[in-house]
Amino acid sequence: MLTPSGRSDIDSFLAMDVLAEANRRKAEGKPVISLAVGQPSHPAPDLALNAARNALSHGHFGYTDAFGLQSLRVAIAKDYETRMGLKIDPARIAVTTGSSAGFNLAFLALFDAGDAVAIARPGYPAYRNILKALDLKVIEVEADRAHDFTITPESLEAAEKEHGVRFKGVLLASPANPTGTVTGRAALKHLSDWCSERGTAFISDEIYHGLVFSGEEVSALAVTDEAIIINSFSKYYCMTGWRIGWMVLPERLIRVFEQLAQNIYISAPEFSQIAAEAALQARAQLDQYREIYRKNRAFLVNALPEIGLPVVSPVDGAFYAYVDVSAHSNDSMAFSKRMLSEIDVAATPGADFDPVSGNQFLRLSYAGTEAEIREAIERIGNWLA
Amino acid sequence: MLTPSGRSDIDSFLAMDVLAEANRRKAEGKPVISLAVGQPSHPAPDLALNAARNALSHGHFGYTDAFGLQSLRVAIAKDYETRMGLKIDPARIAVTTGSSAGFNLAFLALFDAGDAVAIARPGYPAYRNILKALDLKVIEVEADRAHDFTITPESLEAAEKEHGVRFKGVLLASPANPTGTVTGRAALKHLSDWCSERGTAFISDEIYHGLVFSGEEVSALAVTDEAIIINSFSKYYCMTGWRIGWMVLPERLIRVFEQLAQNIYISAPEFSQIAAEAALQARAQLDQYREIYRKNRAFLVNALPEIGLPVVSPVDGAFYAYVDVSAHSNDSMAFSKRMLSEIDVAATPGADFDPVSGNQFLRLSYAGTEAEIREAIERIGNWLA
Repeated sequence: MLTPSGRSDIDSFLAMDVLAEANRRKAEGKPVISLAVGQPSHPAPDLALNAARNALSHGHFGYTDAFGLQSLRVAIAKDYETRMGLKIDPARIAVTTGSSAGFNLAFLALFDAGDAVAIARPGYPAYRNILKALDLKVIEVEADRAHDFTITPESLEAAEKEHGVRFKGVLLASPANPTGTVTGRAALKHLSDWCSERGTAFISDEIYHGLVFSGEEVSALAVTDEAIIINSFSKYYCMTGWRIGWMVLPERLIRVFEQLAQNIYISAPEFSQIAAEAALQARAQLDQYREIYRKNRAFLVNALPEIGLPVVSPVDGAFYAYVDVSAHSNDSMAFSKRMLSEIDVAATPGADFDPVSGNQFLRLSYAGTEAEIREAIERIGNWLA
Repeated sequence: MLTPSGRSDIDSFLAMDVLAEANRRKAEGKPVISLAVGQPSHPAPDLALNAARNALSHGHFGYTDAFGLQSLRVAIAKDYETRMGLKIDPARIAVTTGSSAGFNLAFLALFDAGDAVAIARPGYPAYRNILKALDLKVIEVEADRAHDFTITPESLEAAEKEHGVRFKGVLLASPANPTGTVTGRAALKHLSDWCSERGTAFISDEIYHGLVFSGEEVSALAVTDEAIIINSFSKYYCMTGWRIGWMVLPERLIRVFEQLAQNIYISAPEFSQIAAEAALQARAQLDQYREIYRKNRAFLVNALPEIGLPVVSPVDGAFYAYVDVSAHSNDSMAFSKRMLSEIDVAATPGADFDPVSGNQFLRLSYAGTEAEIREAIERIGNWLA
C-alpha cells in the first residue's frame, strides 16, 4: 500500500483552498467577489498583450535557455539601471517560472536538510511549506505588532537563542505579505550586513516592488551584491497567470542555480517571457492601476474599522489589509468559510500566514476594482451588523 | 562567505548546456541545426494557437486551481476514455507546469530523504539530478543492450541486492529517452504488480505517448490504479515552450499532491492550459507531424550506420536515435562540442543519460523537419569522412 512521504505532510495553502471553493461557487453562477488571492483584477498591460499576439503569429514556443531569453535578461538588467541606477550584469539575472520557482531554487541551492532558515510570522505560507517539504528547519521569527511587523538582527538573535540554532538563511519580504510592511534602506542594510558577517544567506523577496504607498522602496541590490533577489511579474505587472518572475544572483552562485534550474524546470514558458519583456515598458499603464489600489487602500483603511474590522498592520505596500476579526470569531478559517458561503465574499484566513495567532486575523486583497471592493465592504458590513 | 548547499552539487543537464551554446551560435548568425534538445520543430497545433488567440482577446490570465482548470481536467479524463476506454475520475487529473513539475512533485510526495529510487540507465538525466537534489538515493538500473534496454523486476531485484537497498520507488519511461524502448502491456503489468506487492511506488513516465512507431502503446493506467502517471503536452502535442503537462494520481494521494502543488507551483500557466485543452482535439494535424518523424526515423535508421554511427537501441518510440560514436571518440562530450563548433550540428552527449558508459554514445533527435535531418546527416557524414 502506497503511503505519502513524511516530508509531504505540510499544511495546505489556505488561500488556494479558498480560491478553489470560490471558483466552484462562481461556476455555479454565484456572485462571488474574491479578495482571497493576491492577484490584480486587471489583465497584463497592453504592451505585453500586443507582444503576445505578435508572438502567436508564428506560434513557435520552445525551451529557452534555463535562465531565460537573453533579451529579457538584458532588459531586466537595464531596468535596474534606468530606474535605480544599479548596474547589474545580465548574467546574474535568472528568469523563473514565477517567484515560486525562485524560492524553491534558492532553498535547494543554499540549504541542506536540517539547516535552520528564518522567516517572518506572519508571512507568506508557501515559504514555510516549501521549506518543510525540503527537510529544512523553519524558524518563524515574530514580526507582529510588538516587533514593528518586521524582523531585525536583534529578533533573529533572540530567535537563535530560543531555538538553539544558527540561521543558515534569512528570508525577508519587503513589501511584506500579509502585513504590508516596507523595509527601508537603513534597516535593509543592517540586516544584510548582519547576514554577510555571519555567512548567512539573505533572500530578499521583492515581488511587491512597484506597489509601495508609504515609505521607501529599496532593493537589497542597492545595499549588497550577496543577496538572492526574488522578483516576479505577477503583482505590479498584473501577470499572475503567466507564471513568470526572475532572480538576481550573487555572481559566485550563478552556475549552481543554473544547473538546478535546468533539471527542475528546464525553462520558464517562452510565451510569458516574450510578454514580460514588453511589460517592462508598460509602467505608464501599470502606474494607473496602482492609483486604483491606492484609492482602494485609502477607502479600506477608513471603512474596515467602521464595520468592526480593525486594520492591524502598516498597509505601506503590497495590496493587502490584515484585519483583526477577534471581535467576531476566534477561528478565522471558519469565519472566512461562512463569509464565502453566506455572502459570497472570499478572503484568506490568518492561519495561512501565522500558525500561532492567525486565527484572529483575515487578509483582504485590495487589488480588485473599486466597485468590487466597495461592494465587498458593503456585504461584509451588513453581514457583521 | 556564501556557499552552495551540498545537495545542489548535481550534474548539469548537458542537453541544456548544448542548447545554450547552440543558441549563442545562432545569435551570431551561424547555420546551426539542433538535434540536441527533445523538441518538435513544429509549432503547437492550429486549434491550440486559435484558442490562445481567442483567450488573448480578454488577456486576463490568473492563478487557476492548483490542479488546473476544471474543463481541462475533464477533457484529459475524457481523452483517456475516448481513446483507451479508460474511465478516470477528473479529480485524479493534476495539470502541471510541464512534466518537470510532475516529477518534482512525485518525488517529494512519495519519498523521504535517503529513500532509494530506481531509474533506468541510460535514462533522462533530470530524473537523476532532481532525485539527488531532493536527498534521495538514486540507483541506476542497467537498461543497456544486455538488458533489452529496459528494467524488469528481475533486474530491479539484482540491483537491490547489489546496492543493499529496498526500492521505495521505480520510475519507468515508455517510450524511453534516449533508447526509444517501448514497454508493452505484459511487461508493464509484470512490473507494476511487482511494485504493488511490495508497496513500492511505480511512476510511469508517458510523456512520449503518441509517438510509438513499433510495438504497443499502453498506459500504466490500463494495468493499475496505483501508479503515478506523468504526461506532457510537450512532445506529441508540440508544446514544449508552453510548459504544460499532467499527472494521473492514485485517489488516496490526491490531497497530498495538491498541497505540495499549491505551495511549490501555485498553478500552471493559465494561457497554456487553455491552449492545451484545444490541442487535445488536434490529433489529425499532430498525426501528420508524427508521419514526418516516422520518415525521419526510417531515413536515419539507414543513414546513420552508413556514415559510421551505428544505432544501438530500439528506436521504437519517442524521437531519438542513440548512436555509438566509439569508432570516432571515447569522449562524446568533446565529440559533440567539436561537431557543434566545426559543422554547426548540435547533438546531446551520452554522458547526459549514462554516467557510466555514456561517453561512447550520442543522442540525435529526429523531431526536426526532413530537410534539417538530411542536411545534418550530410554534414556529419562529410565531417566524419
